[in-house]
Amino acid sequence: MTLLDTYTTVRQHTEAICRLLQTEDYVPQPAAFVSPPKWHLAHTTWFFEQFILTQHLPNYKVYNPDFCFLFNSYYNNVGDRTFRADRGAITRPGVEEIYAYRKYVDIHMELVLQLKNEAVHSLATLGINHEQQHQELLLTDIKYILSCNPTFPIYNEDINWEQQTNSHLGFITIPEGVYEIGCNTNGFSYDNEHGRHKTYLHEFDIAINLVTNAEYMEFMEAGGYTNFNYWLDEGWAWVNQNNINAPLYWHNINGKWQQFTMVGLHDVNPNAIVTHISFYEAAAYAEWKGMRLPTEQEWETASNKLDWGQRWEWTNSAYLPYPNYNKPDGAVGEYNGKFMINQMVLRGASCATSPEHSRNTYRNFFHPNERWQFNGIRLVKK
Amino acid sequence: MTLLDTYTTVRQHTEAICRLLQTEDYVPQPAAFVSPPKWHLAHTTWFFEQFILTQHLPNYKVYNPDFCFLFNSYYNNVGDRTFRADRGAITRPGVEEIYAYRKYVDIHMELVLQLKNEAVHSLATLGINHEQQHQELLLTDIKYILSCNPTFPIYNEDINWEQQTNSHLGFITIPEGVYEIGCNTNGFSYDNEHGRHKTYLHEFDIAINLVTNAEYMEFMEAGGYTNFNYWLDEGWAWVNQNNINAPLYWHNINGKWQQFTMVGLHDVNPNAIVTHISFYEAAAYAEWKGMRLPTEQEWETASNKLDWGQRWEWTNSAYLPYPNYNKPDGAVGEYNGKFMINQMVLRGASCATSPEHSRNTYRNFFHPNERWQFNGIRLVKK
Amino acid sequence: MTLLDTYTTVRQHTEAICRLLQTEDYVPQPAAFVSPPKWHLAHTTWFFEQFILTQHLPNYKVYNPDFCFLFNSYYNNVGDRTFRADRGAITRPGVEEIYAYRKYVDIHMELVLQLKNEAVHSLATLGINHEQQHQELLLTDIKYILSCNPTFPIYNEDINWEQQTNSHLGFITIPEGVYEIGCNTNGFSYDNEHGRHKTYLHEFDIAINLVTNAEYMEFMEAGGYTNFNYWLDEGWAWVNQNNINAPLYWHNINGKWQQFTMVGLHDVNPNAIVTHISFYEAAAYAEWKGMRLPTEQEWETASNKLDWGQRWEWTNSAYLPYPNYNKPDGAVGEYNGKFMINQMVLRGASCATSPEHSRNTYRNFFHPNERWQFNGIRLVKK
Amino acid sequence: MTLLDTYTTVRQHTEAICRLLQTEDYVPQPAAFVSPPKWHLAHTTWFFEQFILTQHLPNYKVYNPDFCFLFNSYYNNVGDRTFRADRGAITRPGVEEIYAYRKYVDIHMELVLQLKNEAVHSLATLGINHEQQHQELLLTDIKYILSCNPTFPIYNEDINWEQQTNSHLGFITIPEGVYEIGCNTNGFSYDNEHGRHKTYLHEFDIAINLVTNAEYMEFMEAGGYTNFNYWLDEGWAWVNQNNINAPLYWHNINGKWQQFTMVGLHDVNPNAIVTHISFYEAAAYAEWKGMRLPTEQEWETASNKLDWGQRWEWTNSAYLPYPNYNKPDGAVGEYNGKFMINQMVLRGASCATSPEHSRNTYRNFFHPNERWQFNGIRLVKK
Repeated sequence: MTLLDTYTTVRQHTEAICRLLQTEDYVPQPAAFVSPPKWHLAHTTWFFEQFILTQHLPNYKVYNPDFCFLFNSYYNNVGDRTFRADRGAITRPGVEEIYAYRKYVDIHMELVLQLKNEAVHSLATLGINHEQQHQELLLTDIKYILSCNPTFPIYNEDINWEQQTNSHLGFITIPEGVYEIGCNTNGFSYDNEHGRHKTYLHEFDIAINLVTNAEYMEFMEAGGYTNFNYWLDEGWAWVNQNNINAPLYWHNINGKWQQFTMVGLHDVNPNAIVTHISFYEAAAYAEWKGMRLPTEQEWETASNKLDWGQRWEWTNSAYLPYPNYNKPDGAVGEYNGKFMINQMVLRGASCATSPEHSRNTYRNFFHPNERWQFNGIRLVKK
Repeated sequence: MTLLDTYTTVRQHTEAICRLLQTEDYVPQPAAFVSPPKWHLAHTTWFFEQFILTQHLPNYKVYNPDFCFLFNSYYNNVGDRTFRADRGAITRPGVEEIYAYRKYVDIHMELVLQLKNEAVHSLATLGINHEQQHQELLLTDIKYILSCNPTFPIYNEDINWEQQTNSHLGFITIPEGVYEIGCNTNGFSYDNEHGRHKTYLHEFDIAINLVTNAEYMEFMEAGGYTNFNYWLDEGWAWVNQNNINAPLYWHNINGKWQQFTMVGLHDVNPNAIVTHISFYEAAAYAEWKGMRLPTEQEWETASNKLDWGQRWEWTNSAYLPYPNYNKPDGAVGEYNGKFMINQMVLRGASCATSPEHSRNTYRNFFHPNERWQFNGIRLVKK
Repeated sequence: MTLLDTYTTVRQHTEAICRLLQTEDYVPQPAAFVSPPKWHLAHTTWFFEQFILTQHLPNYKVYNPDFCFLFNSYYNNVGDRTFRADRGAITRPGVEEIYAYRKYVDIHMELVLQLKNEAVHSLATLGINHEQQHQELLLTDIKYILSCNPTFPIYNEDINWEQQTNSHLGFITIPEGVYEIGCNTNGFSYDNEHGRHKTYLHEFDIAINLVTNAEYMEFMEAGGYTNFNYWLDEGWAWVNQNNINAPLYWHNINGKWQQFTMVGLHDVNPNAIVTHISFYEAAAYAEWKGMRLPTEQEWETASNKLDWGQRWEWTNSAYLPYPNYNKPDGAVGEYNGKFMINQMVLRGASCATSPEHSRNTYRNFFHPNERWQFNGIRLVKK
Repeated sequence: MTLLDTYTTVRQHTEAICRLLQTEDYVPQPAAFVSPPKWHLAHTTWFFEQFILTQHLPNYKVYNPDFCFLFNSYYNNVGDRTFRADRGAITRPGVEEIYAYRKYVDIHMELVLQLKNEAVHSLATLGINHEQQHQELLLTDIKYILSCNPTFPIYNEDINWEQQTNSHLGFITIPEGVYEIGCNTNGFSYDNEHGRHKTYLHEFDIAINLVTNAEYMEFMEAGGYTNFNYWLDEGWAWVNQNNINAPLYWHNINGKWQQFTMVGLHDVNPNAIVTHISFYEAAAYAEWKGMRLPTEQEWETASNKLDWGQRWEWTNSAYLPYPNYNKPDGAVGEYNGKFMINQMVLRGASCATSPEHSRNTYRNFFHPNERWQFNGIRLVKK
């Protein structure tokens, strides 16, 4: 598969995700952490235009000079940006024009990818991976947007993510010793995975399976949300300030737990893997169970013996640089390094992760209170 | 003109206001005080359905039972409501379905208006006036929504409201005495205007014309926004907390004042009447000028000698009940009375006020910091 | 009684109020609207120093130049001020030094008052009245500070304010007509009372007595705090955001209403006059009762037939200038005029008002949510 | 030295810290992270009463049952607590009564320490260390309280902490390998240091000295606070939201940097070690310098070759449990474990750390924006 083929496949996949939306669904930003779908469509396109076409395609004419301001995300090096919280107020360009913009950039990317330019290939690979990341955010943002509607609209009748179950059970033991972690493949990977290095692990027993809804409901029924002993101090404050008593998207209707899914509102399936929980909830559940979450070093070391890929798994590792981490120069250097504070690492991948976009060295990261990704809980024995 | 004719004319006028919008423009709520255009379209329709069709048209089948929850504004008597700040997150029903809803209700209103039912006629008249109020809000909300876009889109090339000027100048004197104010016509009026009553006025001199941009810029250049002596204490706090240094929609671009208008961004026209100022700014301007704002009793008494109708005019009267004010029973009683606190009365009408919806007894009201209506300043000598 | 005698009496009264405090009680500012007692002691003293001694006593040496910055309240004309919310963090000068400051200023005031200087006499009268206003605030701020302590300390065993009752009952009728209100005495009064002027009143029936705790508890038991129909819209939001279900300082302990008083925590006395209620509560109570609050013009006109002086009485009048109101020049002009927005007028006086500091033209004013003054409810029939 | 001797010495040291305060200084809580000095005095005493005297001294009579509620800090297991932000509003018990409380508890501690009870000895050791921690907080909270006063009072003429300098310069290299870290002494240590364990380190060069004011001012003059490239994303937001442009307590007065110290306001000494900087500032400084902060594992491994003890040193390690960390049961288990989220580890000790209370395994921790401790910056080469 040529890079152009990959490019085309990925770009089409983004549009396929949006095919079932109505025009109005592309617009809102109901929370600061959500972006409007039309913004995702334009921003991923702008990435190719800004970092490749304007630099490497001779005589390239920018589609619309305003778009740099409108669709830059957080690259301070590139110029002033729309305030993040205001994305939902920007109604123009409309959806149709953004699709035209995508087409325009695709045509020119086809040209530039035919040049045998190594910098272009490397940046295009980054842009493709960047768009794949946004595909997952598109899906989780769409879910969040539709969830705000008291009529609970269906996104796609064919998606059954919230019904996924474990295929294997039990614990495995990893012996004490020096291990290597971090990326060593020749394929694409992010700067935050680089620098394969040694780490010392003590023996640990890690679950093959993830926690299910039934298991999580036991915690709830045992008063998990009302007993401070299980919670981190900031987690306990978060529970009380936000009146949290269940995972995100759960609704107790006439005494029965229902869950907003990609297919509307449905009964919680006890056999399915629990999802949409914060790090605080994951940690409290583990504490209640007398266990703990793995570190990311433990996770990566054990990963080839585990059943993973349906839920992003909260680890008990803060998102920090690997030894010898080097932030790339320029705007691309803002991709990862500047977020290395106050966030926790998630490992694995989820049902919403794009095909060809998962590997066992991948370091995902979110704030400990964030729940709108398809995440889950894996336990380690104390 | 029959009531049905009036109904039809007003309903079509609402849709004419929206004709130039793109679908995306109907969705956002960029500030708590703004409502999405599609919400206005649906809410005004729901008013007829809820208060007339479900009560007075035999066998009427509600278009969609969810809509009561989605499109109720603030009528606590009618049931739970969407939180006001969340209206911008409700993408469905989409614009097309809301137009279908309007059509469905219009067809049934045509039927019910043929019944010679006095209660229906009275409620339909209220509903028509209600929709006219929302027409003005639609226009000012559309302006606010488009103003959030750094590309400053044009709403309608044919609207020149921000260029309107005074036709007469000077002051007139109204002698001391007992006057009557309040509504005494047979036509429609709101409960807050009712109860024509006597009031005692002392002699005053009131300007025939409104303050212009040129005059307001004198105040700005004289340091009006930086000298606390001109400001009410809460106004001074508002200026400083929000870094206010000009009317809403004004942008200082390379040292020159420009203004976002219904026709995009343009130079401020010095001859035009200043608009989009808060009560705080109006009061500070008057103080700087050594004058004051009129009370609403003064305004109404002088009104037939004044040039008015292009800007809502801030008065120095708080919005309070007239003597013998009686709040109507039930949901309709929530229309006005419960807002009689912390708001100031504006008199007159504006360029955005609907035809046939202005009279000299009309009491409009907003919080002293609100600026997105087409309002202005009329002075009275101290 | 000479002005110096009055000065001395008032100054001693301030210190008598503080006699029962512990040093620690003088320090905190538990809410933005409360000032530390030691601040009141110093600020009232600074007023005499700043406006009289530094201007009119030859060779006067300021006690400490820092104090102008520390103890200015809101006179922007006099210079930069400590941020209001930070008063509780200023521990020095300590209480003892502030008493020394008072003594120093008193000695010099004795000198300056012997000069036959009319401006001094006029400013000293203002300063005395100013200190009397602060005496009332001292008492209500002390109550608020002590109420924050879960051990409910006693301020003064001899104060029984919360037990005060009505002495007369019934309604009186005031006939329609033109009346005069505003100040016409030769004694001291504030600028906001000046400009005696005519006003037109329609006939009204006003209660001689104030609402009692027993009557207010009827409202509570009838669900007054849970039925939005009785409330102004912003009042209803205030109730819900703050979980209000009783007057300030009321605690429901084991199903019984108790009240923090100047003498600690005690059972609510049903016969006593209700106090510590917001304007929102006063208005909701009146609405529930099918009555209304008086306007300030009605109150003043009826005042000589009423039983008043134990509670500040919320009127339904916004705090606005009288006809021909003129703000004095300079710092003294900041006393009243700049607060004429978003506040409601209270008339009468309270148990905490200083002797010789009440009259029927006095215009007190607070925001509609403020409850820490000794205020109450008088009804007018609709 | 017997445990009783140690107890007595430490208790007296606490009171010595407060000897120079005025009564008023003991009261305020100017920020949520600060506690009133009188609260520290009482809380440390309550710790001994609650965990030792009420459990282990037969017939012990609690000094005042209200104090448990008033002086519990964050031990949810022990009962309801005063809200943390409200500590500054609790004026009673006053300072004198709190000293009486200390005396009462000391007398009974003397008795209980004579019993040969191992649990008592172990808890008393914890209580002594706990009081030592509060001694440091007392000093930094006193500095913060006095800093709020625009007159900049002097705490103690004899303290010259802000003038401390480095005694050695240069870098040392630590070779790659497996190292052991964590506590292995027989003396007292906290649960978060326990579990000595192996860790793998890569070679690194670490500075012997800390960054000085002169070096930090170079960063400031090079535009360090205005160039986002040096900052973590949340650090950049923190800088902009709070208008940060210098370390805490620095004031630019007529173009010259001055610093509030324990001895009032003084010129910044360029040779002294920089202090009162946030983790964000430490990380930005390192980035600007082309270096990085050490991890806590690196720090501990290199510690015996370093010059440390004058400033707490920000590491680039998040505060997380060591392998095999076990939270103790009951209230004592709330000491450390529940804070292991969103905080960064500081290593070393500071000028304000109590004698006998520092060791190279000690793990201090604060949020990345907190600056009121005496902290500093040590660099590692990239």
